[in-house]
Amino acid sequence: MTKKVVLVVEYNGSAYKGWQAQKTGVPSVQENLEKALAVITNHPVKVICAGRTDSGVHASAQVVHFETNVVRNERSWTLGVNTYLPTDISVIAASDVADDFHARFSAVSRRYRYVIYQSDLRPAILAKGVTWTFKKLNVDAMKEAAKVFLGTHDFTSFRAVGCQANTPIRTILNFDVQQLGHYIVLDIRANAFLHHMIRNFAGVLMTIGAGEKPVTWSKDVLEAQDRCKGGITAPPDGLYFVDAQYPEVFNVPVCKLGPHFLPYVDEPSYELSS
Amino acid sequence: MTKKVVLVVEYNGSAYKGWQAQKTGVPSVQENLEKALAVITNHPVKVICAGRTDSGVHASAQVVHFETNVVRNERSWTLGVNTYLPTDISVIAASDVADDFHARFSAVSRRYRYVIYQSDLRPAILAKGVTWTFKKLNVDAMKEAAKVFLGTHDFTSFRAVGCQANTPIRTILNFDVQQLGHYIVLDIRANAFLHHMIRNFAGVLMTIGAGEKPVTWSKDVLEAQDRCKGGITAPPDGLYFVDAQYPEVFNVPVCKLGPHFLPYVDEPSYELSS
Repeated sequence: MTKKVVLVVEYNGSAYKGWQAQKTGVPSVQENLEKALAVITNHPVKVICAGRTDSGVHASAQVVHFETNVVRNERSWTLGVNTYLPTDISVIAASDVADDFHARFSAVSRRYRYVIYQSDLRPAILAKGVTWTFKKLNVDAMKEAAKVFLGTHDFTSFRAVGCQANTPIRTILNFDVQQLGHYIVLDIRANAFLHHMIRNFAGVLMTIGAGEKPVTWSKDVLEAQDRCKGGITAPPDGLYFVDAQYPEVFNVPVCKLGPHFLPYVDEPSYELSS
Repeated sequence: MTKKVVLVVEYNGSAYKGWQAQKTGVPSVQENLEKALAVITNHPVKVICAGRTDSGVHASAQVVHFETNVVRNERSWTLGVNTYLPTDISVIAASDVADDFHARFSAVSRRYRYVIYQSDLRPAILAKGVTWTFKKLNVDAMKEAAKVFLGTHDFTSFRAVGCQANTPIRTILNFDVQQLGHYIVLDIRANAFLHHMIRNFAGVLMTIGAGEKPVTWSKDVLEAQDRCKGGITAPPDGLYFVDAQYPEVFNVPVCKLGPHFLPYVDEPSYELSS
């Protein structure tokens, strides 16, 4: 009998051309995960995720579901699957889930963090895990500029040309800009995101933070409803998918917010519940 | 007129076959740094480092010197050089230094940190930056076992077969074992280290910490003066060169101790002094 399993997956996206499986030879997180799961289930597996991430983008807690006819416990779906995954992908939680659960369609909201590292000199150890800028950023200006994004808007100006969404309308539920020493973290929750939306937010806010545009520019860009009026698309290195929220009834495992190298973030526990 | 310059260099060693320049096509930190410096100096540059690191080993603050006949300021030797370096290598401090300075021979001691991540499940984002173990480690036992390494000993049992040092005698000045949540950090300062010495320490201490050998085993291994009596060589991923100490007269720039993703470590400032 077929049933559904939900997984929480952490990955370092540096080595991958994004989440989505593509043609042969193009490394993707999805393909690696599906192959590892197929070893455990002994049948082909198709996984669906809460939010597809682009090339070079990371996840501290991506949520996925798949269908299977085999019964395995949490240890198998985590430790077992992990033995067949590359070291930069790890299943950190697993649970059986109701048949009507869908990692994408059941999600009420998604949350991302964009981690900027402001410093005269380039970081090297975390080079692929943060977006470095040597420009001094005015965080208060960035906070003020971000306020216009809250709520429901047409985000055409922040949408990649190739975006395949049916509508540019999205609802931003939270948009926090926080400074922690040299880190400046954009923490954004929305019902859903358009392609490149957060990196385009980051591009506009970093430009405003650097004093190259006034605080009101974010409003101008938003209201223009024209991608050509926006700023640069900021790099993928600092972007992390950190959470997806579901109705409580599904009992999706909740993981600590990452990425855990941030000074104010508790490290994730990576502990088995059973 | 030729003069000497000292640099502090941070690097993520994951993509390199170690510090030392090797034959063509083998990626090394040294070769990349020498090439970048040669662009600034317009003459071939040979760099000497405080402590050569192995394949996959990182440095938060490697110290190097080189000779040049051009005069450049701190900005050129940091920002300028960095523009010609890959993103996983960064010069984080620079200064002119006396002619009798030598990054290797003037060093009074070197300091490394070995970062273990203990957890049921594998970390993915920092996969190449920590050594993961699912085994519960008894940190008190590891601390006790490490005490025998303090002082001057024949470390033949902790020396790689291919080690080219003239003598197996080394002096361990500090050996700290600290737990910070899921991290267990070995923090070791010595006059100098043998090849694989710290990873061999880590192999023995992790075995003792896991309860697979008694606390007294570290003494047995040390006294055996036989590499075959030692444990496994722990992986390079968690190993960081964090500091080299020099006589004060040389005024070598001092950088904050890394790696800065550790919860108790201040992030490095990466600020220019001038």
